[in-house]
Amino acid sequence: MAARKQLNIALLGHRFMGRAHSNAWRQVTKFFDPAAEPVLKVVCGRDAADLQAFASRWGWEETDTDWRRVVERPDIDIVDIGLPTYLHAETAIAAAQAGKHLFCEKPFSNTLAEAEAMLAAAESAGVVHYLNHNYRRCPAVVLARQIIDAGELGEIYHWRGAYQQSWLINPEHPIDWKLRKATAAAGPLWDLGSHAIDLAHFLVGDIVSLDCRMKNFITRRPLAEDPATQGEVEVECAALLTTEFANGALGTIETTRYATGRRNRHTFEIYGSKGALTWDMEDMNRLQFYSEADPAHARGFRDILATERCHDYVKNWWPPGHIIGYEHPFVHAAADFLDAIAQGTGIQPDFREGVRIARVLEAALAADASGGRVSVGGELAS
Amino acid sequence: MAARKQLNIALLGHRFMGRAHSNAWRQVTKFFDPAAEPVLKVVCGRDAADLQAFASRWGWEETDTDWRRVVERPDIDIVDIGLPTYLHAETAIAAAQAGKHLFCEKPFSNTLAEAEAMLAAAESAGVVHYLNHNYRRCPAVVLARQIIDAGELGEIYHWRGAYQQSWLINPEHPIDWKLRKATAAAGPLWDLGSHAIDLAHFLVGDIVSLDCRMKNFITRRPLAEDPATQGEVEVECAALLTTEFANGALGTIETTRYATGRRNRHTFEIYGSKGALTWDMEDMNRLQFYSEADPAHARGFRDILATERCHDYVKNWWPPGHIIGYEHPFVHAAADFLDAIAQGTGIQPDFREGVRIARVLEAALAADASGGRVSVGGELAS
Amino acid sequence: MAARKQLNIALLGHRFMGRAHSNAWRQVTKFFDPAAEPVLKVVCGRDAADLQAFASRWGWEETDTDWRRVVERPDIDIVDIGLPTYLHAETAIAAAQAGKHLFCEKPFSNTLAEAEAMLAAAESAGVVHYLNHNYRRCPAVVLARQIIDAGELGEIYHWRGAYQQSWLINPEHPIDWKLRKATAAAGPLWDLGSHAIDLAHFLVGDIVSLDCRMKNFITRRPLAEDPATQGEVEVECAALLTTEFANGALGTIETTRYATGRRNRHTFEIYGSKGALTWDMEDMNRLQFYSEADPAHARGFRDILATERCHDYVKNWWPPGHIIGYEHPFVHAAADFLDAIAQGTGIQPDFREGVRIARVLEAALAADASGGRVSVGGELAS
Amino acid sequence: MAARKQLNIALLGHRFMGRAHSNAWRQVTKFFDPAAEPVLKVVCGRDAADLQAFASRWGWEETDTDWRRVVERPDIDIVDIGLPTYLHAETAIAAAQAGKHLFCEKPFSNTLAEAEAMLAAAESAGVVHYLNHNYRRCPAVVLARQIIDAGELGEIYHWRGAYQQSWLINPEHPIDWKLRKATAAAGPLWDLGSHAIDLAHFLVGDIVSLDCRMKNFITRRPLAEDPATQGEVEVECAALLTTEFANGALGTIETTRYATGRRNRHTFEIYGSKGALTWDMEDMNRLQFYSEADPAHARGFRDILATERCHDYVKNWWPPGHIIGYEHPFVHAAADFLDAIAQGTGIQPDFREGVRIARVLEAALAADASGGRVSVGGELAS
Repeated sequence: MAARKQLNIALLGHRFMGRAHSNAWRQVTKFFDPAAEPVLKVVCGRDAADLQAFASRWGWEETDTDWRRVVERPDIDIVDIGLPTYLHAETAIAAAQAGKHLFCEKPFSNTLAEAEAMLAAAESAGVVHYLNHNYRRCPAVVLARQIIDAGELGEIYHWRGAYQQSWLINPEHPIDWKLRKATAAAGPLWDLGSHAIDLAHFLVGDIVSLDCRMKNFITRRPLAEDPATQGEVEVECAALLTTEFANGALGTIETTRYATGRRNRHTFEIYGSKGALTWDMEDMNRLQFYSEADPAHARGFRDILATERCHDYVKNWWPPGHIIGYEHPFVHAAADFLDAIAQGTGIQPDFREGVRIARVLEAALAADASGGRVSVGGELAS
Repeated sequence: MAARKQLNIALLGHRFMGRAHSNAWRQVTKFFDPAAEPVLKVVCGRDAADLQAFASRWGWEETDTDWRRVVERPDIDIVDIGLPTYLHAETAIAAAQAGKHLFCEKPFSNTLAEAEAMLAAAESAGVVHYLNHNYRRCPAVVLARQIIDAGELGEIYHWRGAYQQSWLINPEHPIDWKLRKATAAAGPLWDLGSHAIDLAHFLVGDIVSLDCRMKNFITRRPLAEDPATQGEVEVECAALLTTEFANGALGTIETTRYATGRRNRHTFEIYGSKGALTWDMEDMNRLQFYSEADPAHARGFRDILATERCHDYVKNWWPPGHIIGYEHPFVHAAADFLDAIAQGTGIQPDFREGVRIARVLEAALAADASGGRVSVGGELAS
Repeated sequence: MAARKQLNIALLGHRFMGRAHSNAWRQVTKFFDPAAEPVLKVVCGRDAADLQAFASRWGWEETDTDWRRVVERPDIDIVDIGLPTYLHAETAIAAAQAGKHLFCEKPFSNTLAEAEAMLAAAESAGVVHYLNHNYRRCPAVVLARQIIDAGELGEIYHWRGAYQQSWLINPEHPIDWKLRKATAAAGPLWDLGSHAIDLAHFLVGDIVSLDCRMKNFITRRPLAEDPATQGEVEVECAALLTTEFANGALGTIETTRYATGRRNRHTFEIYGSKGALTWDMEDMNRLQFYSEADPAHARGFRDILATERCHDYVKNWWPPGHIIGYEHPFVHAAADFLDAIAQGTGIQPDFREGVRIARVLEAALAADASGGRVSVGGELAS
Repeated sequence: MAARKQLNIALLGHRFMGRAHSNAWRQVTKFFDPAAEPVLKVVCGRDAADLQAFASRWGWEETDTDWRRVVERPDIDIVDIGLPTYLHAETAIAAAQAGKHLFCEKPFSNTLAEAEAMLAAAESAGVVHYLNHNYRRCPAVVLARQIIDAGELGEIYHWRGAYQQSWLINPEHPIDWKLRKATAAAGPLWDLGSHAIDLAHFLVGDIVSLDCRMKNFITRRPLAEDPATQGEVEVECAALLTTEFANGALGTIETTRYATGRRNRHTFEIYGSKGALTWDMEDMNRLQFYSEADPAHARGFRDILATERCHDYVKNWWPPGHIIGYEHPFVHAAADFLDAIAQGTGIQPDFREGVRIARVLEAALAADASGGRVSVGGELAS
């Protein structure tokens, strides 16, 4: 391991995703053997005091409040973008132009135009680019994909997905950046829907048309910066999509922040001609699998605890039956990303996937606005 | 009980629903004490031999192959319609005109026009009319309604429903009356969707607008009457709806005959400002209830086994913890229907509900055809 | 069917089990085609007024308050014993001596000596004798047995069983016949444990040794006949057994009336060298099956809804996915019992099984009394 | 934080528990703010090459192959014992005598005598001593204790526990240290049963008497050191206990390595006069809670996802609905242990708990040997 190449990381952002990413960079060399070694070089943010405390805690060598300076530092190999969505395009494009490999948090961008610019910048720079739809790297989701790839579902007929949270049922929850169009672009369609669409893309394929219905239930709320004043919520709080996939399957995707009792329920059901799968992020270690190949008297959804040696990633953690949690797929992503750089390969999902998701998201906005069915835009130029 | 009035029943149909209804009329006086006593007077069908065997088995006094003669018999009080949908309107209207009380199986009608004519006939005849959306009388569904009526869900935000079967994944399943437009009107939208919409109406309220996307996966199949010949399936096999309710809630309704592994899964999730409910017909005795009124440390979906003395209907069967099955809600409906006649009251759901459902179903067909959002038609005249 | 032999039944008892048995005799010819036809000839009980109402409701032709007279009537073919346990031996022996076929409710007897006498009487009379451990005829339990018989569990290592109710947590529940030794013999060990032991016998085999620990939590309660007076509860309210089976498997059996939240939870887990099964009476239509024969990546407990055409009994009721309830296995037993008489065969479980269970129950009492391990008595004479 | 005291740790052992403990010491300052800062000073083991690789990976400053030298180093504050059980007593006593605080993995000791000596050494040295029954620090288990302490279960009647694994169903699994008496003391009774007894102690209280039945299913296996040769398994592979608690509750504890399909299922059910709880380590983030205080129509086991801000420990990780995994309770223990040292308090479970568990384990061996009930030994001297 002594000869393993070191890669210097600059992290932009030090809130929720800053913690999750820092943890991933720290844990990856403990539980995995990536082909390169991450060095927590510099973390970047606006609030110098908070930033310093964050860096001390997580072991970042330096701090900086100027992201432009950071992304242009010649000693930096990787720019890890953990900022709010509206800051992704500018930072990612600058970093790509500076030749940095990109590890970018989701949602990818505020608009399709931004997404396309980000992809173009990354591709023309020839860097490794990764979009962190981390749920793809839950062992149970990897297993779902393997089962599908092995043909065990046959032809896929249905995707039934939902991503449900409930934090907006409290009318006192204030209007913060997530409830403003300029900063968040949209509501759960963006934040949660991008995850749901990514899994649908990963497991079923391209969405070619969709209907969408959006709504906001509590439209006026206190302002975060001035709780005595009420303001208007600028984004939807729920979005319902029906879709058709390129392979002919139908889909539903429901995203909401008003599903009382659901804290982070990201669930899908997939039905095919030979079998079916269901999964829920709140029980992320498990996959339910029904197979028509089972004998008729013994068919039923199998509750698979994906913690066996034969299940990807999880063997690096603990023995079978010992579950992992929310942050572990971030570590899996870090391992694969480091390998991709060291080995000169790509990693999925990449910025191309970000564009693919953005096409669907913008089509959904258009469908809701028009009240009619919308085709999802054409091919991606290679 | 000696003084209890007897009501003579004529049953039309002697297949699946004929059995379920016959069982209900026989069991109702054993487990309940309805205010009138049903007499299994005559069963009507086309195949005289089968019909006779059916009558012998179930205890029908007489048989007849001429439904018109039967519904006009002066000694008949109740006409119980267990025929395929396309025969409902003609028989129900004739029976109403003959002054018979009507117990009608679902789907109510093939068209909205038929539905309106059936309602008009029943109302002008002044008879008791009942539409057998039997799931309303599962004790767990009754409990759901009681919890909602008590305000324990608060304002309702979301309905997420699905009715999933899988019998069409077999490409050898032939084209029978259920796959032809003339006899079935539509596919699962009608057969399963009418149930789902009825529960949505019962628990949330009127649907005011909807989008709909329908599809057929295996379009050519052997003909039932000539298996060596392939024909075209005439109805959709899956229908996805998004809806808005009069009270502002959003909804999704998914119906399909291609959900591998699901045999008769009729499920809903309801989310409101104060609580949430989920239910599944395959576990029909249970209701899951989440309440924001629980202390913060102890909130979770409660798995209520609705077999307690305080739960409607079920106390008439067995002690707590002893579950009931598919046919029991039919018995509950029979009990309430007999009471309604004896006591001169109505019973829900009635033909008015049939019209209400038909409006939604026809709007769904229109929405699918147009690819756009459709408003559900206006008020019902009283 | 015209030629089908009729068998006249005398039912002793008209409470909970009287209802369940009456329902079974009525339903069996509707949903099954037994080789003989049951005639509800006479029901017998002590309270003439109640008895008459019961007979009218359920269609018993006659009533009688003298069971001895009834069991000796030459026109009676079957004596159905639905009385409290302490009355089983005397009535069953008399009926056997009168040459009647015996359908006997559980628990079989108050003592092993009674059980042996009942078996001897039935065998020497050459009648068909059946002990109604009805859970054996749940389709999911039948399936469990089939899976075991097919070798799909391999060598069985563990039985983990429990039968849990909660009606005694209320300290106001009075001392009735179930809490008195003379009438009930014991507490849940007898009432619930006999069921649990029967399933263990059915699915695993003979119990050869056991430990038992019994206890009573609330020892003084109001008297049923005089609620103002407190009396002493005479039987245990919980019994814990560990067992060894003849095939080498270990077992636990836990029975209690103090399991708050459990209303009628009768559950088992079985672990073998090749697979495992779990079941719960509160979800009686389902069986969970784990198989080592599944590919390593896709092993998990399958949740089998035992309502398919290939599952025994259930195909006579409704289509797949339509569940049955508590009373249905009684109907299955009635069908098999009528067939056994008409065809001159036996039916399981019979009185020999009653003796087998009684041996275990008495051994458990002895083990608890001694605080030490007890061998379960020797072979049954044939 | 600058002023936070540093505590130097010596870790003994570098296998499974060495990894889990190293991870805990690394993660604790990232997600918690312990009152002292752990320094990963030295790791100790026999295999110098492996040890060096381990130290490099996990960030231990030094390595040593002589544990005696290490525990006597004046710069060491904490000795963390992650060795096989049979090495606990000697190392812990030496470390205590050297004045080191003790963080000891379970099972505590091979014998009660060892346990008592360990406790005496720790107490006379006045050091902080902790026994790592980590499941106590799952947020859902903490919640269980809080619910019990608040009286929400009332008087406890039943504990039904099991700890089930399945790795011995493979007859090729060799005889290693876990299957030899000298090194492991016993089989799952020790390894798994100590955890189960600890939770029973934590949640219900002292066990005062017990029965025990042990067995070994596959008695001959290949030797780990010579797979061509078969040897005799020296320890049981399953142990069934029934117990009585000091507060009058009854209990069952089942431990096995032959529960096919169960990988690490550690589960309990607790029934009290006012409520009930169930939990399973394979779904460690959830607790099921039934309360008689709920209205009669809405009672059921609540499925609580213990990831809310009000749930202990978990708020330090991620937002509600984001689950944690197997290794997190180790981190919780590390945080509390560091606080205990810095604040001069104790931490539970400590070595006194180790003695309490050892008393039960030895009583179980005696009960199995005698085939009779055994009282669990007297009071612990203070």
